[in-house]
Parts: sequence; structure tokens; C-alpha cells
Amino acid sequence: MDSQIVTFLINCPDNKGLVAKITNFFYSKGFNILSCQQYVNSIENTYFMRIRLNAEGTHISKKELEANFLELAEPLNFNWSVNYGDRKPNVAILVSHTSHCLYDLLERQREGDLNCNISMVISNHDKLRPIAEMFNIPYFYLPVTKGAKEKQEDEVIKLLNDHKIDLIIMARYMQILSSNFINSFPERIINIHHSFLPAFQGANPYKRAYERGVKLIGATAHYATEDLDEGPIIEQGVERVTHDCTPKTLKRIGADIERLVLAKAIKCHLQNQIIVANNRAVVFPESGE
Amino acid sequence: MDSQIVTFLINCPDNKGLVAKITNFFYSKGFNILSCQQYVNSIENTYFMRIRLNAEGTHISKKELEANFLELAEPLNFNWSVNYGDRKPNVAILVSHTSHCLYDLLERQREGDLNCNISMVISNHDKLRPIAEMFNIPYFYLPVTKGAKEKQEDEVIKLLNDHKIDLIIMARYMQILSSNFINSFPERIINIHHSFLPAFQGANPYKRAYERGVKLIGATAHYATEDLDEGPIIEQGVERVTHDCTPKTLKRIGADIERLVLAKAIKCHLQNQIIVANNRAVVFPESGE
Amino acid sequence: MDSQIVTFLINCPDNKGLVAKITNFFYSKGFNILSCQQYVNSIENTYFMRIRLNAEGTHISKKELEANFLELAEPLNFNWSVNYGDRKPNVAILVSHTSHCLYDLLERQREGDLNCNISMVISNHDKLRPIAEMFNIPYFYLPVTKGAKEKQEDEVIKLLNDHKIDLIIMARYMQILSSNFINSFPERIINIHHSFLPAFQGANPYKRAYERGVKLIGATAHYATEDLDEGPIIEQGVERVTHDCTPKTLKRIGADIERLVLAKAIKCHLQNQIIVANNRAVVFPESGE
Amino acid sequence: MDSQIVTFLINCPDNKGLVAKITNFFYSKGFNILSCQQYVNSIENTYFMRIRLNAEGTHISKKELEANFLELAEPLNFNWSVNYGDRKPNVAILVSHTSHCLYDLLERQREGDLNCNISMVISNHDKLRPIAEMFNIPYFYLPVTKGAKEKQEDEVIKLLNDHKIDLIIMARYMQILSSNFINSFPERIINIHHSFLPAFQGANPYKRAYERGVKLIGATAHYATEDLDEGPIIEQGVERVTHDCTPKTLKRIGADIERLVLAKAIKCHLQNQIIVANNRAVVFPESGE
Repeated sequence: MDSQIVTFLINCPDNKGLVAKITNFFYSKGFNILSCQQYVNSIENTYFMRIRLNAEGTHISKKELEANFLELAEPLNFNWSVNYGDRKPNVAILVSHTSHCLYDLLERQREGDLNCNISMVISNHDKLRPIAEMFNIPYFYLPVTKGAKEKQEDEVIKLLNDHKIDLIIMARYMQILSSNFINSFPERIINIHHSFLPAFQGANPYKRAYERGVKLIGATAHYATEDLDEGPIIEQGVERVTHDCTPKTLKRIGADIERLVLAKAIKCHLQNQIIVANNRAVVFPESGE
Repeated sequence: MDSQIVTFLINCPDNKGLVAKITNFFYSKGFNILSCQQYVNSIENTYFMRIRLNAEGTHISKKELEANFLELAEPLNFNWSVNYGDRKPNVAILVSHTSHCLYDLLERQREGDLNCNISMVISNHDKLRPIAEMFNIPYFYLPVTKGAKEKQEDEVIKLLNDHKIDLIIMARYMQILSSNFINSFPERIINIHHSFLPAFQGANPYKRAYERGVKLIGATAHYATEDLDEGPIIEQGVERVTHDCTPKTLKRIGADIERLVLAKAIKCHLQNQIIVANNRAVVFPESGE
Repeated sequence: MDSQIVTFLINCPDNKGLVAKITNFFYSKGFNILSCQQYVNSIENTYFMRIRLNAEGTHISKKELEANFLELAEPLNFNWSVNYGDRKPNVAILVSHTSHCLYDLLERQREGDLNCNISMVISNHDKLRPIAEMFNIPYFYLPVTKGAKEKQEDEVIKLLNDHKIDLIIMARYMQILSSNFINSFPERIINIHHSFLPAFQGANPYKRAYERGVKLIGATAHYATEDLDEGPIIEQGVERVTHDCTPKTLKRIGADIERLVLAKAIKCHLQNQIIVANNRAVVFPESGE
Repeated sequence: MDSQIVTFLINCPDNKGLVAKITNFFYSKGFNILSCQQYVNSIENTYFMRIRLNAEGTHISKKELEANFLELAEPLNFNWSVNYGDRKPNVAILVSHTSHCLYDLLERQREGDLNCNISMVISNHDKLRPIAEMFNIPYFYLPVTKGAKEKQEDEVIKLLNDHKIDLIIMARYMQILSSNFINSFPERIINIHHSFLPAFQGANPYKRAYERGVKLIGATAHYATEDLDEGPIIEQGVERVTHDCTPKTLKRIGADIERLVLAKAIKCHLQNQIIVANNRAVVFPESGE
């Protein structure tokens, strides 16, 4: 390791002395602690930490660091992961007909706002190919034909595995993924739902928002889980609307919320700000990053 | 009539020439049109108007005005109401244990922010009496005893009728009103629900918000209807929250949203800004008021 | 005229009977009034109306309509304009180094969200050419060389005139336009300023926001006038920030506010929602559009 | 000490190992670390920590703890303070004519939302006495007579000192405090300004907001310093407004922002969430409190 920024994410049963023990461990190995964020869930008695380290000047190898860390982690029952910041994650974007989130993500990545490679766009329709091509991103058209949904999913999964995809973004992908698919990529699929969940789960949220006469509409980015729209929520946004809005107007207003909410959620994921536990996402804010 | 501000609320099937016909009517009677707000629902083909008139200098009586207006209204199938602004509405506040909305409303009325008389506070508990007394508002303690809920409701209804109550505010009143009660006061009962409906209908919304891990909580003011929490929404508000919030913290943050949302909704009602149709509330903004 | 949507914008001294007279005029000519929005400024005693008409079935020519309307307008001292919705406005975007607003506008126009032609991108740098080319928009590189600013402006003005540009968008164009330039396009230049004006007028608003320790940052879209950053405000937005934000972080957060605020302002302009009077912009909301 | 919650606020030059050293110190003394929040300002190379400790089971005295802590603090150049949570702070509220913030604070304190004693209300007018009396808070009427401003300030200062006031709240107190007054209570006076500073510093912000035609208004709570409206900002809020708002309407909308912003700022102060450095307020969020 060298002048890298290393991020550890830890969660475990709460215990006296955790922060002292963990920070001491890294300090004693020569790391400079850039930020150390904790959260104690006093209802479930659990502890969460995100700690960012500057590895400059340390001469420890990854292997050695992890072996040493395990000695601390095991007796305290840590769930933990480490990211060495030395490799940009590979991302695949799944889309159907709707383009605003796709445009937004491609543009942000191009602008340097998203720390990742966008390896491919996959769609069950051929419609959005020109957008991917504008940005020189490979576009895979894998239609879902009657009775062959499983086959299509297998092709998608193969593509994702072949290209070592780290994060899958459902940017308004209008297919329900099978449990098999979902479980192949735990906490690695982010979906944008076009309502402030748990309101308007399922189909046609804008139409239902119009019918219910709500004065606020929203969007929700969450990890995909087996139960549709019930995965851990990463980010939500809302906007005021009035009685004068039709379902079409709501859709247009909603598009801007979706864009922002999805981009924020992805950024949090890519910057290792999220720990999932008990179907809830602990999302640490950026800290001097 | 004299220098009063008169407000007509009209809704009807949409038709060519409505705004010209209506404004012409009032202009020809000598009224100065202070504001004229319309909304066309092009999906349901309905038309809504709120028109505020300065009666200064007109010499027409209420009776004559209404008789003349009927000649316009009947062939065009208007639903309409008129408020002459010559009498402050009488308001009753229903509460149980929670005091923040009660305090807020009493204070706003005292400050002159709410154009009404607060005639009484009614509660199924005696707990909040000292607050009503601070503000010199009569407090009626009408407990709900096992098997005698109907009797208590009858007493409440009698009180409301005896005091000619125009608007009933459920400021965190933790009793479900019967259909009989609800239907005795159509569009005259405003309830505050402590979630952004339709999310978390029913009991314990803050606890459920914590469990779901939402990143936004909210409150909704709506007219009470037979279906619990499904009445026409008048106003909603939200606030950002984080994983660090417990149900107790959410409750505290939510209290400020509830306060503001309920006060805004009541103000809209008292200023005759609302027309209900098809279980949705058309809420016209203030216009130079 | 045929099945067009015609929009009149009117402002004048306030007077009894204005809404009746105007709506009557259009009704008598056979127009269906789609929406009629008014605003009375009771402090300055001025009246503002935006009225949208469906011309379907009328057989009046533009010339005849305008001649007839003049007979109403002159005695009542109307300032007025009419838009027949039969021609997409031509837009030029001025940029320097910063790309996020440019991307956003090009994408929205491509998506059909902005009702205009983007005729060209003009810049004093060659840097953003690839973005314009992605979207097949002509890019004009007109550098500002020492002592030759006036010459460059003349070239820009010539370009704008030659291409009959209706609206000029300063999408983070980092040059101060001369009075001559500004006055050649009154109420036709929209600028985005990266602060919530009047806070942080002038240069480096994000750095100054950091130094002042504000807890909110914002952006402001306004018509450009001779006094820098003092033109009529069309739209503003803000976002919460914390002590943890550096000027660089503020810039990143601000970029999303700028994007949204500029796009909303442009939309309001393109949909004829704005009347400027007394250096303030009356911005009517969309109404069933 | 016993089962108290002890809060240390620390700021110092940034250095490797700070979090490890500090957390270790408290762990070794037997404290349970409830939360430990840090912030590194990498521009000014400074470090900030707020650490909350459960003293249960420790048998160390305050004196001993502080003496021991000094040995850590001195070589590392800590600015630090400690709060043992064993005494409710005494608060004085200064008001003039405007009552909404006063009502709000009295009500919140009564509700148990503000962890303090409100010892007195002081005013240069007698107008708001009835409100203080409703809540049984002593009211001191100390008018400012021509040429005797200094004398009045001395009386106010004497009152504050005699009652051992810890925090002074300027809840729309319309007098400019002298440098002498301000400097007698450093970081102990919180003022609410009725605009989103630095916009509209000084008098009549709502009138100026109307004249400028802004689309957002706001409020700012800050520590009072010698330069009017330039002290460290603790909290800000905004609300959308439209062209239709008069200065009077803005004032009414603003009142709700002022209320909330002031209450939030005071809460942050009372919960020891704030460290001031370089005229900026580092405001740590609540953490499981």
C-alpha cells in the first residue's frame, strides 16, 4: 500500500471501548485517520463505524493488515469490509424506455462526479442505444421474450459476471428481477423507485399520486431485495406539487427528483458510505472528502 | 353589504366562456374583482373558480345577489358557496394527550394569524386543561368509557351544535370518529396525520418510519372522511432524517412538521381557499391577501 | 390562426373591471380561454394578466386580432405581448469552462423538455466543443483577446442577429457583458448566478460562502441587466450544507442547484410565464400545461 | 460524578493520532463513549471533536478528570470545555415588540423540548409582559430612554449576572448591543436575524426582499458579535415565496422560519453541539440523543 485512502466499514454488537480499540489499532499501524464516523443503534444494541485512513508512510501489506485486523475483529464479532481505493468499480446500467436517469449518470461520470467505470448499458429495448453511443458506452440489447425471461436474465448475469461488474444500477429498468438474480448480487443492485416509499409501492405511482391528491411527490433509491420496493432505502427526495398537476406533469417534475436521488445514492455507494443491517441502510455523510 | 370582501367558490362542468360570464356578472353588479383564480381539470373536464370581490359601493343585498347569481349558476350546473367575511368562524379543537398542535393553534389565534374564534377545546382526557386555561379557552373533558363511545360522541356533537361550531380540528385526537359523526360535519373536520400519506396510514407512523429506514418523515392535514386517513389532502410537509433517528427523535422532529402543516391547512380553510371534488382538495394559493 | 395556443401577457395600471373586459373580449372573438391568471400589485397599483387561449374554430387573422385588441388596450394603457405558439424560439447558449449547465440544457432540449431550438453554443474558450458536438449543435469559439473585448462582443452580437436568436442563456459564461450588449437584448438574456442573490454578488460566491460559514447555499437565475447580478430574479434554489463542506464541495453541491434553477427559469421564459415590471419578475405558475 | 452524561468539546491543530489518543484517554478512565464526532478542517489544518461519555461506574472526580485531561490537552494545544450535564443552564430572553419567537421558546421549554431554565424575559417595552405572565416567567421592563442607553445596558448586564444567566437569546430584540455588552458574554448571545444572511443584513429585510423580488426568504440564527449580523452562523432556514407576496406577507411567512431556526440553534447550543473557531460555527448533529 502507498498513499492510498483506505476505508473500513464495520458493524458489530455494541461494546465499551470499541472506538478506542479500533482507532488505536490503526494508529499503531502507522495510519493517519482522516475521518472516523460512528453510529450506535441503542435500540438494537449495535455499533457501526466508517473509518478512512491515509496509508501514506505505512509499510504494511494488505494481507498483513487484514490478518492483523482479524485478530481484533473476531473476538468482537465484527462484520467488516475494506476498500483500498486502488481500483475504480465497474458499473452496469439497466434501462428500459426512460432516458433521463441514464443521461444524468453518463454525464456525471463523464464530468468526473462518479468515481467508477461505466462498463455497459443493458436494456430489454433497443430504444436508448443512441444515448449510450453518444457517450461511447457499449449497449447490450437483450429483449425479454414471452416465456424466456429466465433465459434473458441468465444472459444479463453472464454479461455482468464476465465484465466483473461491481454495481448494477436499475435506472428505470421496467422488469422485475428474479430472486435468483437479486441474490446473486447482494447489496450490489441499486434501484430508483418513482415515489417516496413506502407510499405508492408498485406500478404507476404518479397516476396514483394524482388520484390521491397528494401535495408532495418523491423518489426513492434503494438496494434491490426479493420483496419489490422493500429493500434498504439509501436516499429520498420530494418536491411540492399542486392540484393543478396532471399525472404527466407529476412525471416531469418527478424526473428531476429521480435523477438527483439516484445520483446521490450511487455516489454514497461508490464512496463506501453505506452499511446495511436489518434491512436498513446506515448512510454516513461525506466527511472532508 | 358594505365594504366587505366576499368570496365565491364555484365548481362545475367545464364550458367555453365561464370566466367571461362569471366575471361579467360580478362586474355588472358593481363589484371590484380583487382576485379571480381558476383551475381546469382537463382529465375530468371540470372547472373551479375562487373569486374575491370588494363589495364597497355596491348596494345589492345578499339575498338579491344570491338570487341573481342562481340564474347564472343553475343552467351551468354550478356547485357554489359564498362567504361574506362578516362573521368569524367558530372553531373547536379536539385533543387527547399531545399538546404541541394545541399550543400552536392557540398561540396563532391569539397572535391574530387565524381568522376565527376558538370556542372550545374538547378532550377525552383531562391532561391538557391547563393549556386551554392559560389561553382562557373553555375546556370540556368528555372521557370515552368502555362501551359508551357512542354516548360520548353524542355529547361532543351536542356541544358542537350548541355552540354553532363551523370547523372542528382534530389536533392529535386519538379516537376514531364514527361515520355518523363524520357525516354530520362534511368538509368541516380537519385532521392532522403524523406521516406523509399515503405512507404509514394508521397507528404508530414514527415507529414504522424508523423500522422502514426512511430518509424523510412528514405530516398530512386532510378533511376527515369515513375511510380513516383517506380524506382529501389539504397540506403536507416533510423533513430529512437520518439512520441516527430513533422513533423518539422522529416524533420530536415530526412535531414541528405537524404544527406547521396543520396551521397552514386551517388557514387555507378559514380563508375559503379550498374546493373539494372527487375526494381531492383544490387549494388555491393566497392572492394579494 | 388555427388550433394554436395563443398567450397574451398584459400589464397595466389597476382598474375596476379589467378581468371582465379582457376575458369578454376574447370570448366574443370565439376563443376558448384555457387559463387566465392575474396578479394585482396593490402597493404599486398595477395589474398583470397571463391568458392562454385555444384558437380552434376562430376565423380571425393575427392582424385583425391585434388591431381589435389595440382598441381595448390603448385606453387602458396596456403593456402587452402576444405569442402564437407557432414557432419554436431560437436559443443560443454562452459558456466558458464549466460544463454542467450546458450538458443539462442540451439533454433537456433533446428529451423534449424545452420547447426551443438550440441554434448554437458560443464560448470564449474551445474547451466545451466536444459536448456541443455530441449533441450536434454548432459551436462558435470566439476568444476574448486583450484589448479586443468589444470586437468579440460585436462578433457575438452579429452571430445572434444573423441566426435570429430569441433567447440568450449565460450558462456560466464568465465574461461581463457590456451595456451595449445587454441593451440589445432586453429581457432576452438569462444568467445563472451561483449564489442565492443578493447574497454573494460578484465573484467566487462558493469561496465566500465557505468563509462566512453559511448553512445554506443557492443559485439564482435572472435576466441580465446593466447592473451585474441585479436583474429581475426568475428562480432561486437552495440546499443545506454543513461546516464540513469545503469551497470545492460547495461548488459540487451548488452545481446541481444551478442546473435545476437555470432549467426552470428557461422553461418559464419559453412558456411565456414571465412579465417584468419595476425590475421584478412576475412568474405565473404553469396552469394545466 | 455518577451516571451523568459528560460532553467534551475540543479543537486544536490537526495531528496524527488525535482520535486514538483522546478516545483511549477516556476509555482508560472507565468511561463508556456514547458518541464521538470529529471534523477536520483540512484548509486551516484544525481538528474538532465532540465526545459524549457515560460516567456510570467511573469513580473519578471532576477535579481529577480535568487535571488528568490537562496533561493530554496541553502538549497538543487543545482548546476545550467540558459540560457535566448536572445543571440546567439559565436562559434570559430579550424581546421588543414581536412575540412569535417568545411564545415559541416559552412553549418549547414548557413542553420539555429545551433543556434549560428560562429565568426571565427582559424588554425595552412593556408590551409582551402578558405572555411572560401566562408562562409564569419574570418580566423585566427596562426602557431605553434618550441618552441613557448605556445605563439601560448596565441594568440588563447586572440582571444577567445576578441571576447567573448562561445564555442570552435575542428573540427579535430591536436594540443594537454595545461592544461592551457583547464582549461580556462571548458565544453566549444568540440572535435571530430575519433574512438568510449575508443577504439583507441590517434593517427591514422583508421590505428589501420584496423590492428585490427574491423567490426565497429566510432567517439566520447566529452568535452576536461586535459586527452586526456578522457573527458565526448556527442555523438557517428558507421558504419559497412568489411575486404575489407583499412585505407584510413575507413577514408572516418569515415568522415561521424565524421560530424554527431560532429554536433549533438554541437546542444545538444547549446540547453542547457547537464549537466556534475563526468566526464559523462547527455544529455537530445530534448523535443518538
